[in-house]
Amino acid sequence: MSAKRNDRGVTPLSEDVSAWYNELVLKAELADRGPAKGSMVMRPYGYTIWELLQRQLDDRFKATGHVNAYFPLLIPEEYIMREADHVEGFAPELYTVTRVGKKELEEPLIIRPTSETVIGESYSRWISSYRDLPLLINQWANVFRYELRPRLFLRTTEFLWQEGHTAHVDEDDAMAEVLTIHDVYAEFAENVAAIPMLKGEKTPGERFAGAVRTFTIEGMMRDGKALQSGTSHYMGTNFATAFDIQYQDENNEQQYAHTTSWGMSTRMIGAVILAHGDDAGLVLPPRLAPIQMVIIPIGRGEDAEAPLAKAHELAADLVAAGVRAHVDDRDQSPGFKFNDWELKGVPLRAELGPRDLEEGHTLVAHRIGELDEKGRPLKEKLPLDEVVARVPGMLDAYHELLVKRALEFRLERTALVDDWERFVEQVAIGFAEVLHCGRTACEDDIKAETAATPRAILMESDDESGPCVRCGQDSAYGKRVAYGRAY
Amino acid sequence: MSAKRNDRGVTPLSEDVSAWYNELVLKAELADRGPAKGSMVMRPYGYTIWELLQRQLDDRFKATGHVNAYFPLLIPEEYIMREADHVEGFAPELYTVTRVGKKELEEPLIIRPTSETVIGESYSRWISSYRDLPLLINQWANVFRYELRPRLFLRTTEFLWQEGHTAHVDEDDAMAEVLTIHDVYAEFAENVAAIPMLKGEKTPGERFAGAVRTFTIEGMMRDGKALQSGTSHYMGTNFATAFDIQYQDENNEQQYAHTTSWGMSTRMIGAVILAHGDDAGLVLPPRLAPIQMVIIPIGRGEDAEAPLAKAHELAADLVAAGVRAHVDDRDQSPGFKFNDWELKGVPLRAELGPRDLEEGHTLVAHRIGELDEKGRPLKEKLPLDEVVARVPGMLDAYHELLVKRALEFRLERTALVDDWERFVEQVAIGFAEVLHCGRTACEDDIKAETAATPRAILMESDDESGPCVRCGQDSAYGKRVAYGRAY
Repeated sequence: MSAKRNDRGVTPLSEDVSAWYNELVLKAELADRGPAKGSMVMRPYGYTIWELLQRQLDDRFKATGHVNAYFPLLIPEEYIMREADHVEGFAPELYTVTRVGKKELEEPLIIRPTSETVIGESYSRWISSYRDLPLLINQWANVFRYELRPRLFLRTTEFLWQEGHTAHVDEDDAMAEVLTIHDVYAEFAENVAAIPMLKGEKTPGERFAGAVRTFTIEGMMRDGKALQSGTSHYMGTNFATAFDIQYQDENNEQQYAHTTSWGMSTRMIGAVILAHGDDAGLVLPPRLAPIQMVIIPIGRGEDAEAPLAKAHELAADLVAAGVRAHVDDRDQSPGFKFNDWELKGVPLRAELGPRDLEEGHTLVAHRIGELDEKGRPLKEKLPLDEVVARVPGMLDAYHELLVKRALEFRLERTALVDDWERFVEQVAIGFAEVLHCGRTACEDDIKAETAATPRAILMESDDESGPCVRCGQDSAYGKRVAYGRAY
Repeated sequence: MSAKRNDRGVTPLSEDVSAWYNELVLKAELADRGPAKGSMVMRPYGYTIWELLQRQLDDRFKATGHVNAYFPLLIPEEYIMREADHVEGFAPELYTVTRVGKKELEEPLIIRPTSETVIGESYSRWISSYRDLPLLINQWANVFRYELRPRLFLRTTEFLWQEGHTAHVDEDDAMAEVLTIHDVYAEFAENVAAIPMLKGEKTPGERFAGAVRTFTIEGMMRDGKALQSGTSHYMGTNFATAFDIQYQDENNEQQYAHTTSWGMSTRMIGAVILAHGDDAGLVLPPRLAPIQMVIIPIGRGEDAEAPLAKAHELAADLVAAGVRAHVDDRDQSPGFKFNDWELKGVPLRAELGPRDLEEGHTLVAHRIGELDEKGRPLKEKLPLDEVVARVPGMLDAYHELLVKRALEFRLERTALVDDWERFVEQVAIGFAEVLHCGRTACEDDIKAETAATPRAILMESDDESGPCVRCGQDSAYGKRVAYGRAY
């Protein structure tokens, strides 16, 4: 079956996910490629999703006691060198400034790939007593990591993210922070992005460079692959030692602080596209949709005037009620507009023609929902005087529908697997929950044969042990591990 | 008189503005110096001011039809070269990436000093018809310009800003945009930052590199110097020609777009510090204050419990009413706390002791306002059950007081000046509004002798002409020009 583009100019998802994704991101005007290799321009439609994500995630950070700050983009090369695992992990990906004006710098400056080092240096100056702890700071910033095979949103050399960096008196307090944020990420992903996430801990081979423990949320995409969507790390005293972050405890003794870091990035927009989209284009969850309801006035010549006026009136009322409503008054056919807003994933579309107006209703179609006999979204007659009162509830119901759909899809494609042949079949379509010996060499064998990697140790699942699905040795962790192919 | 530090550890403003500023920024925990030369760490207290500024300015951009997007930080060197004036203006200040990992780049990448070039390249692809215009996009971003003499907030090598970039069918439409934003900046500065600005156009020698016309808002600081706080530029077709931004007009003819750009940065925080501060420290305008009212419970041992509980209750009620209230429950003396919050510029301070509680009131002191016989802020008894209802109005009145105070100060230190001796005296303490010949050579002479530069041609003032205050030649512009020493 050859990949053919549909009438929206995008290869159907069902034929070629990769082509669909690449074409859709451009066609829906979410992003463009930038001039330097692997860079991205976030266009207004895509950036507005980021703004909505940012606002709602930031509210959650503040509600859990965090404050924002901003640290420099350029870091002395020597800083990166101080934590051995950290430098080993990041060295090949670093962008280096060697010149200012016509002058060569004596010490090159690195563009941050992440900010543990420069923030650690500040923390060593700001923290002197146990009274200064915990220190709970987050930063919204751009970071750079070289990418061999860049893809818009998923892997770009520059990306936007938030990075939380906290310091604590001991392991208990630091681990409580890591798990709080792990929960915030999962709750946010489900309640805002409509993606119910697999939660768990990374195996040692998949940990962040410099971390003692790493926790992750992993979403399942429409092709059954996993997308790592937010990680939280317990650093132990690794960075505190490298950057001399010490405090005086209640007994006047010097102690190293225990630190954490955690991040979510513009990659999450890639997750939203790949978790919900379909052949017709994007399917945006309402809480991240730049436009939640588009109103399309219908009619020609004089007949068009009254619907257009009413559409603007409805939109103004909806906006006043907190709904992101938009009137499409472009000089284009209704069919063109329907396709365009389907491609752009707008949750609700209201049509308003002269006859609808006479009859006092608008026809509302849901981007995802029941279909009519022609396979088009079923339209619902909504009385005009009920629009403002009912749309917020319709959007909430639509959100719940997306969550349910995504969860059912993930569960359908997840299985407990205890033999190798079943494993190979299962990871080709989704997640296999297995017992594993925990050896990195065995993980590497699995990856070489199936492209699957350990996504998360399922910490919240029942205790279990037995032979490794691959090598038969005793299992590690006392929990099952979810394996899958990953973005 | 030698500069001595007051009991807050900061040199008084009245003795040495420069020392006061440098010490206060650190002491009030607004910012720190970063590791690379000229870089800055914005600490939570300073960054929260930026968040408040950002939110309120962004709302104004959206209300005037703009949307946000994000363009890459790294720009091919060749792009910067395309607009002759632009490259001449920026070349000495550019940070250049020449290496990624261990690999030397074939074409070096510039860290954006501003984004006209990379945005121009996108616009040339996005714009094809007059229907695509106007294109009204803003970006919040970090930019880099090398600084010989860096100062926190005022001149840092990396700074945060917003940069608007718009494209229009013709000069009229582009100029209307430039003036709209010029007005938005002035309105924002007065209604949010409490700084009534001098508005006007830059003389040719002071224009942005590549601009045809530049408009500016200039605030007067407590030492009588000017601080340029937001500029808007009409680019004509300079960048459209360099980046081939063409559109097909209604007659199917190809035309170059007319573009604009405009920016306000973290420098505005420097303006807030320098426009309002006093010997005791910061004086923050309420709409940018991270804490608008601090509540200080007073009492020892058991006596402290009831005031503390009531303080938290009041703060919760205030927060629910939209007031940024904070309880200072640190284990420190009231005197220490009073000094600390004065230094940090919190507008209102409420004291709450056991006797106040019994009598059903709290004592409210305004950071700026009437003084008692000891020269301390007069305290007002505010009934506890009126706090929530009255504080928002008190904050508005406080804002108006700051505006009035700043305007009176500026007017006191501004004079119409028509002879050279008077000019020299006037620019030593403030602004001189003069007739000027408009020759850059004459501007240079003035600067060499007095350190004063033309801040703005007063476009909104009456038409006037006559001999140049400096050289006697015929005046230019048909308007007076405000001169002053500048930050």
